[in-house]
Amino acid sequence: MLNHDLKKEFQVERIAFFSDAVFAIAITLLIIEIKVPEVHGEHLTNGAVARALGHLIPKFIGFIVGFFVIGLYWVHHHLLFKYVEHYSPKLIWNNLLLLFSIVLMPFSSAFYSEYWIYLNNVSLGFYVINISLTGFLHYRLWCIVSNPKNKLSRGLENPHLVSYYKMRALVTPFVFLMCFAVSFISLPLAYWIPGTIFIYMMFIAKYYRKHHPEIFVNSTT
Amino acid sequence: MLNHDLKKEFQVERIAFFSDAVFAIAITLLIIEIKVPEVHGEHLTNGAVARALGHLIPKFIGFIVGFFVIGLYWVHHHLLFKYVEHYSPKLIWNNLLLLFSIVLMPFSSAFYSEYWIYLNNVSLGFYVINISLTGFLHYRLWCIVSNPKNKLSRGLENPHLVSYYKMRALVTPFVFLMCFAVSFISLPLAYWIPGTIFIYMMFIAKYYRKHHPEIFVNSTT
Amino acid sequence: MLNHDLKKEFQVERIAFFSDAVFAIAITLLIIEIKVPEVHGEHLTNGAVARALGHLIPKFIGFIVGFFVIGLYWVHHHLLFKYVEHYSPKLIWNNLLLLFSIVLMPFSSAFYSEYWIYLNNVSLGFYVINISLTGFLHYRLWCIVSNPKNKLSRGLENPHLVSYYKMRALVTPFVFLMCFAVSFISLPLAYWIPGTIFIYMMFIAKYYRKHHPEIFVNSTT
Amino acid sequence: MLNHDLKKEFQVERIAFFSDAVFAIAITLLIIEIKVPEVHGEHLTNGAVARALGHLIPKFIGFIVGFFVIGLYWVHHHLLFKYVEHYSPKLIWNNLLLLFSIVLMPFSSAFYSEYWIYLNNVSLGFYVINISLTGFLHYRLWCIVSNPKNKLSRGLENPHLVSYYKMRALVTPFVFLMCFAVSFISLPLAYWIPGTIFIYMMFIAKYYRKHHPEIFVNSTT
Repeated sequence: MLNHDLKKEFQVERIAFFSDAVFAIAITLLIIEIKVPEVHGEHLTNGAVARALGHLIPKFIGFIVGFFVIGLYWVHHHLLFKYVEHYSPKLIWNNLLLLFSIVLMPFSSAFYSEYWIYLNNVSLGFYVINISLTGFLHYRLWCIVSNPKNKLSRGLENPHLVSYYKMRALVTPFVFLMCFAVSFISLPLAYWIPGTIFIYMMFIAKYYRKHHPEIFVNSTT
Repeated sequence: MLNHDLKKEFQVERIAFFSDAVFAIAITLLIIEIKVPEVHGEHLTNGAVARALGHLIPKFIGFIVGFFVIGLYWVHHHLLFKYVEHYSPKLIWNNLLLLFSIVLMPFSSAFYSEYWIYLNNVSLGFYVINISLTGFLHYRLWCIVSNPKNKLSRGLENPHLVSYYKMRALVTPFVFLMCFAVSFISLPLAYWIPGTIFIYMMFIAKYYRKHHPEIFVNSTT
Repeated sequence: MLNHDLKKEFQVERIAFFSDAVFAIAITLLIIEIKVPEVHGEHLTNGAVARALGHLIPKFIGFIVGFFVIGLYWVHHHLLFKYVEHYSPKLIWNNLLLLFSIVLMPFSSAFYSEYWIYLNNVSLGFYVINISLTGFLHYRLWCIVSNPKNKLSRGLENPHLVSYYKMRALVTPFVFLMCFAVSFISLPLAYWIPGTIFIYMMFIAKYYRKHHPEIFVNSTT
Repeated sequence: MLNHDLKKEFQVERIAFFSDAVFAIAITLLIIEIKVPEVHGEHLTNGAVARALGHLIPKFIGFIVGFFVIGLYWVHHHLLFKYVEHYSPKLIWNNLLLLFSIVLMPFSSAFYSEYWIYLNNVSLGFYVINISLTGFLHYRLWCIVSNPKNKLSRGLENPHLVSYYKMRALVTPFVFLMCFAVSFISLPLAYWIPGTIFIYMMFIAKYYRKHHPEIFVNSTT
């Protein structure tokens, strides 16, 4: 009996660790898109190397955005699996769908990093779709995990807590889609929006912590 | 005694986690085959970038197929290790053979993605061989793990359950080999076949669940 | 109750394992910056291949430095998580910041490997900033984890042990920043400094082990 | 007390899992050295693609050798950590040295794959040095772990078992160094030797299992 439980726990852990490995590789692959600048022969002064490094600044900005988007989703996934006690084919396949969206990120992030400086709508759109897809798939996972019929979770009995988590999963897609909509009016304006995502999230988190403090008892994140 | 058991359990887990890491890297490496399209200088309109992205569609289709083929095999491996309680050199080396076939996948998948649009038989054949090899090696692992002489598993006493799992391991190689055979008659027709794999699998799963419901008691996947 | 504790322990482990995966990928990506030298056609004598390999020596030196810098930080992280019993959003996000600095390493290490031979200040400076940032973020993590208010750790009650660990976290940034300062006077001299880091560390370790032996009871590293 | 033991066990596991991740990435990076062959435009017949694939055969042979060399060392590492119960800075740093040698493998393996067909001595020598270094570092780890003074292991009390494992760690370096020595007399002959490594190992394993069967009681690998 105990043994059987240990095995089930181990099987749940394997899903989390496989996901962790995919997240970790995707987040680290972001850096291989930034190639070491080539400065040749006689021009190898400090100034020339510094200028070559300076040309990479747009890519570095794209890298930083990409890193924290994937990082944010990992924190989300980590939070989700805090409540998962059992697993089902449905959970496994929806988790794979989420990982598909994560694996796509190094491409869409690099694509966006390459062209955002030219105020290009297409690369921004592609990235926003990828980010939103990941957010919706997270939302879907919360629905599956929190549904009492599926008997997958423990500790999600409070409907306020569940609705808070679901809402939080939708914040990122919402902000980025809004940002994409604004980009048709003014691209430079749109670029200010992702920065506000954290302010939104903190606002929402504070609202819930104030009005429903009871739901955070025993909840570390 | 308890300590000794914990150590054995940990050693089995290490095999599973090493495999997970290999699967995770192989599945994530698929994306680095899709390079960010280069659009130069004065042509940098939204249309030009969109067209460049459009040219990548065949590669994206190959990426999606490759992702779900590796994902399917990971789900399989996850299911297999649910029953593994002990390990032997035989299990370790056959598992390594399976991982060899998985590591080859990013190459064969990229090779196929590059040339499938030209209705090329050779790249399709190479991919089909790789997929079938993985399927047969999974079948072999089921044989090794379920064999009572090897004393590796627990919970596989029911022969119906074992034969169901073995059969399931052979479905993917069977469908892809059939697809390759048809490709000599008509390549476009052959490309419709992999899509039907899921329908086949669902059919078989439903058949077994209907006729041998007793074997799925205590079985979550 | 027990179950809840197991889950919390598992959540802490996931943070450590995700970090491990990122460290492991960053440390392994260092090698892909060293490309196999191309020697063509008729010149393919042993001498030509050996000379081509010889040209890679500066990159190999950069690779060795990069490997042991990341390795040193992994050992540090391993040591830190020995004391972590609980987690909080603050810990998770500061850990992510540390991982950001680690993910940047394959780039800054390759950049430095490419240009150090030309006694270039800019690439050295970039690398030193990256190394120092990682050191400071480790220091910050020690502050967060050891702060009794955060209730994250166990076994860090002794203030001497905590100050020893914090000081140790600052040794690497200190040595590399000193090395960078010296590089403005004499670059060749500066290159001798990183090699002395290990001597410094051993000195400090010995000092503490001699004057505060009581703090190392029950402490394996 | 129990908690303290769990933490120590977790710290040992982290060393094993970090090593696993490095092994897994190194073994998977082998494939990215084999690029998809480019066949252009009008020549895109099945024959042209098959010929392009044929030109990769030497690289595939190198890939297969590289995969099983790293795989063999992983099996070795897995076996070693079966006995590890505690850890020390000495164990951690020697393990890092071993991982250094593993991380170098994708380079030395690709270097060898590129030039072995030209019967080139330098690339073979570099690969042999890398393989031998890994073997010696494994031998060193066995010495450290089995030394009763270090109090790191359990279950290695039998000196016959320890000497068997140490000898086994030296087989691979020995065979490859012999192969390198022979290569100065006849390179084609030298290439036959690595294939015989497995026969040697089986012979030694059989010898020990016959003359010291008592040492394999409770030993699964």
